[in-house]
Amino acid sequence: MTARRIAKTVIIGTGLIGGSFAAAGRRRGLLDRVVGVGRRRANLETARAAGLIDEISHDPAAAVEGADLIVLAAPVDSCLDLLGEIAPALGESTIVTDVGSVKAPLCRRARELGVARRFVGAHPMAGGVSSGAALADADLFVDCVVVLTPTPENAAAAVSTVADLWRALGARVLEIEPERHDAVVAVSSHLPQMVASCLSATAGEDPCAAQVAELAGAGFRDTTRIAASDTAMWLAIANLNRPAIVAAMEAFSQHWRDLTRAVREADGEAIAELFERGRAFKKKTDG
Amino acid sequence: MTARRIAKTVIIGTGLIGGSFAAAGRRRGLLDRVVGVGRRRANLETARAAGLIDEISHDPAAAVEGADLIVLAAPVDSCLDLLGEIAPALGESTIVTDVGSVKAPLCRRARELGVARRFVGAHPMAGGVSSGAALADADLFVDCVVVLTPTPENAAAAVSTVADLWRALGARVLEIEPERHDAVVAVSSHLPQMVASCLSATAGEDPCAAQVAELAGAGFRDTTRIAASDTAMWLAIANLNRPAIVAAMEAFSQHWRDLTRAVREADGEAIAELFERGRAFKKKTDG
Repeated sequence: MTARRIAKTVIIGTGLIGGSFAAAGRRRGLLDRVVGVGRRRANLETARAAGLIDEISHDPAAAVEGADLIVLAAPVDSCLDLLGEIAPALGESTIVTDVGSVKAPLCRRARELGVARRFVGAHPMAGGVSSGAALADADLFVDCVVVLTPTPENAAAAVSTVADLWRALGARVLEIEPERHDAVVAVSSHLPQMVASCLSATAGEDPCAAQVAELAGAGFRDTTRIAASDTAMWLAIANLNRPAIVAAMEAFSQHWRDLTRAVREADGEAIAELFERGRAFKKKTDG
Repeated sequence: MTARRIAKTVIIGTGLIGGSFAAAGRRRGLLDRVVGVGRRRANLETARAAGLIDEISHDPAAAVEGADLIVLAAPVDSCLDLLGEIAPALGESTIVTDVGSVKAPLCRRARELGVARRFVGAHPMAGGVSSGAALADADLFVDCVVVLTPTPENAAAAVSTVADLWRALGARVLEIEPERHDAVVAVSSHLPQMVASCLSATAGEDPCAAQVAELAGAGFRDTTRIAASDTAMWLAIANLNRPAIVAAMEAFSQHWRDLTRAVREADGEAIAELFERGRAFKKKTDG
């Protein structure tokens, strides 16, 4: 596949993902002029000093003037507002994409704003518990799954431009419809976050918490690794994907009640059955 | 500290932990003659071929004849029976220890059997989701926390011999009383196992399970890593540490209900509060 070169790219939010997108695109000669938009001056300066962006702007609507590609890489809730801010300034051939982990609300907003033709949602399965342009990595998306959530309104050329670009950065591109994507990530990503944070908070409230911390081994550390994630980012995700997350949490609750009962009543068969189902699915996610 | 050399050591259960104990002790010249006892001939042959043990036995009572140190490294429930089998054959100066993750039931059994003087419980915070002598690692216990659970009945010399030995293998030795140890590991180790297995089982039952597996990223994989653990081992642990595990699971349930309600009602303050508590405790467990 050959991705076309983009003359003017505007990246709104040059954190880990936005910064890595710029780094990856520049390294591969796919992005010419790149404008970084953000609120935190220091982070934008870091991005410019690292050669990720050429220009700095604090005004999204002004920055997108004449842009060929706009990447919304701010927290998911801000992206809803940002889309409203930039919509009137979009040129006829401008393509807008994003990198957030909730897709249906943005696709709906694009429809309301009359820019559904050119908004192609994207969600790279990358990133970590830390953020900031300083961590930008030009190879972050190599072998990474990137979900695109095209809609019937999308211009075919917009979808293929975005898909080709991600593939050129080394990603494996999947297409899933927006609502389905949100239901899947509620289970694959948002539920683990809720579970990990709840587990860590529960342990921290234990009367023996100091000793629990002292004896916490690799099992505890891995199971709670993502409990270190940014709270504000997760508040936004919880807010935007609420129904799907609540459904996933309730499904977990049902299994948790069953397991608690089984342990309390020494129902070894029921415990073993749940453990074996967990093992079986674990194998599928590692393969 | 200087650990005394042990003339005859009997290791009952030469899996990952028992095998690594033998490997670590031999490498440091602390164990002379080592007898491996087990049920699986192939695993014992592997241990002998690797130089971990000198002799193979399938008869615990016969093997412990004349032993200076006996290490119970079989699954925790088997160790209760094994202690009964070997008790009549113990010499006056024989020290018995173990490596299991539940301590109070074994200490009680030692008392019932009249061998409480010489049974010193130990729990190395090491091991993984795989097992077997083939994975034995002479450096598995370097920088590893090993909890000893001495009792008032213990001979002081027995406790110091076991403690010195673990320190000589590179471990950091902590002393905690048996019931307290079991309450702490219910939260630090057994609760994460229940949560990880339940999360993986929940995801595996989802109507979109195939896509959940496809989109599962590092967050899902880490949070469910220990869901790959051996079911039989965990059935035994659940059985022996039931009241403490149920208490830990109920504490988790309470926080989970609160968090589910907060997400459902868009109570951002309550979500943020739980996330921040999770983050704060996470920092403590990472050192």
